[in-house]
Amino acid sequence: IRRNSEAESLDWDVFQLFSLIGTIAFAASGAIVAMEEDYDILGVIVLGLVTAFGGGVVRNLLIGAPVATLWNESLFLNTALGSIIVMFLLPMKWIHHWKRAEAFFDAIGLAAFAIQGALYAVEANLPINAVMVAAMLTGIGGGMIRDMMAGRKPLVLRDEIYAVWALAAGFAIGMVNVRSTWELLILFGIIVTFRMLSVHYKWKLPRRALRKHRG
Amino acid sequence: IRRNSEAESLDWDVFQLFSLIGTIAFAASGAIVAMEEDYDILGVIVLGLVTAFGGGVVRNLLIGAPVATLWNESLFLNTALGSIIVMFLLPMKWIHHWKRAEAFFDAIGLAAFAIQGALYAVEANLPINAVMVAAMLTGIGGGMIRDMMAGRKPLVLRDEIYAVWALAAGFAIGMVNVRSTWELLILFGIIVTFRMLSVHYKWKLPRRALRKHRG
Amino acid sequence: IRRNSEAESLDWDVFQLFSLIGTIAFAASGAIVAMEEDYDILGVIVLGLVTAFGGGVVRNLLIGAPVATLWNESLFLNTALGSIIVMFLLPMKWIHHWKRAEAFFDAIGLAAFAIQGALYAVEANLPINAVMVAAMLTGIGGGMIRDMMAGRKPLVLRDEIYAVWALAAGFAIGMVNVRSTWELLILFGIIVTFRMLSVHYKWKLPRRALRKHRG
Repeated sequence: IRRNSEAESLDWDVFQLFSLIGTIAFAASGAIVAMEEDYDILGVIVLGLVTAFGGGVVRNLLIGAPVATLWNESLFLNTALGSIIVMFLLPMKWIHHWKRAEAFFDAIGLAAFAIQGALYAVEANLPINAVMVAAMLTGIGGGMIRDMMAGRKPLVLRDEIYAVWALAAGFAIGMVNVRSTWELLILFGIIVTFRMLSVHYKWKLPRRALRKHRG
Repeated sequence: IRRNSEAESLDWDVFQLFSLIGTIAFAASGAIVAMEEDYDILGVIVLGLVTAFGGGVVRNLLIGAPVATLWNESLFLNTALGSIIVMFLLPMKWIHHWKRAEAFFDAIGLAAFAIQGALYAVEANLPINAVMVAAMLTGIGGGMIRDMMAGRKPLVLRDEIYAVWALAAGFAIGMVNVRSTWELLILFGIIVTFRMLSVHYKWKLPRRALRKHRG
Repeated sequence: IRRNSEAESLDWDVFQLFSLIGTIAFAASGAIVAMEEDYDILGVIVLGLVTAFGGGVVRNLLIGAPVATLWNESLFLNTALGSIIVMFLLPMKWIHHWKRAEAFFDAIGLAAFAIQGALYAVEANLPINAVMVAAMLTGIGGGMIRDMMAGRKPLVLRDEIYAVWALAAGFAIGMVNVRSTWELLILFGIIVTFRMLSVHYKWKLPRRALRKHRG
């Protein structure tokens, strides 16, 4: 994404920062799940990286964007790696502290990744449905792959409202044409806020349970 | 796929219809599995879409065809979405009715998708093994990803004969050169029939059970 | 990969042979896991092929190399297929023999695939981190997908040291510039040796178990 006006480069820098925070949060959550599943240090690193970058990779595959550019994002790769190593070494007490703050950082990641995914799809001139799915996949894809690789059912499809906020970001950007720095920042704030509200009040989407009919 | 003779455009329309029926059946089966696993409405939608389109996406990735064209198939995306919503809202009694009819619609989907996948690979000038795998993946890929995302073992690899009929479609198209409208329609009928027979008589492929040797 | 000097074509032939041995070992391990999970013959074939080729496919997707070239490697596809069929038919006693030798052939596969993956990434001019991940993914990716498709947690992320040797191959090729036939052969021998040592002495990477905090 090339930008040339000053306002837009500010925009870019701010979102770089948000994406970095999201990368830290997502990588850390992958590392924690791996430690809970008794993986070794390499498993912890793999699951952390998959959680941080899996959503973007799946999104790029689905919207036809090149995947290999990932390897040039050393800043993000190293940040994720650092976050994972810190989690592996962190004293137990601090991990408890982290867990309390986790939802907040994760919400920042969700918002930043969803916006990034939607902008990506918009630049590729994709229709609105693709923009919304790109936003959702970037926001929740990493967590889904993380859970599948840990032998768990994807949490984001069952728990409090999560994916909807990513979809909403896609809708705002693809349909309502939210594009300027300030609009995007406000959108970012709204998504983080609603995600935190849905955690705090345990908002859930409607569901309908069927009994299983086979093995 | 460009076609110009009238016969072939008939062909195309008929298969569009079959593919639509298959999309409805596959999306519905994904939605039902998601409700059985207690996913929320968004999880139901995600699993339904993955089941309907996952096979085609994996096939395109493996044969090197563009994946992003998916987003222009609004008819299919909206049909799948509608099928999922209907399943979510359908009274319990009707879901039981659906389940009895499910195998039939699913067989239509299997046949339509397998033929579509094989034709796709033939147009890409791929060798016969790739044509057969493309047919199989398009037919069973969505169901496999569905089961993995629901934390289940892929049913199509264990249950009554399923994937073989997709492979057979690939063989007929890639090796025996079944191509004309009427030949394809006959192939379609044969696959649906054999799939229904294998459900009804519980035909199974040979298997060989080994005791597990590790955790 | 084009090579023109005589020494290098020797190199290529030797690694072709190693890769073939690895393909046999990986396909067989996939077949055995599928039989342990009570899959039918087609499930056994699918899981065998996925184990043998899944790592290369994921690697190519991630480094932006074409995936469809897979279909032209008839020699490898047929070898994998043969290996799977043999496993399906092998008398129980011989399967036990195989299991004792399995670790050795698997180590050859790990080394061959890791080196192949790293050379691939180097030819694509990717940075060192991508070279290392490409080596690792080619070495362990198939086994990871195998376990996920069998409803198991990926063994390579928990068991004795495995992935590290693939990473080491990536490091040696990407960073230390190991390239000549003899250097590569020595690297190959070192990786096989260390992998066998880690199986025999049950070397493990450090790990840190956390109690699970959610369902």
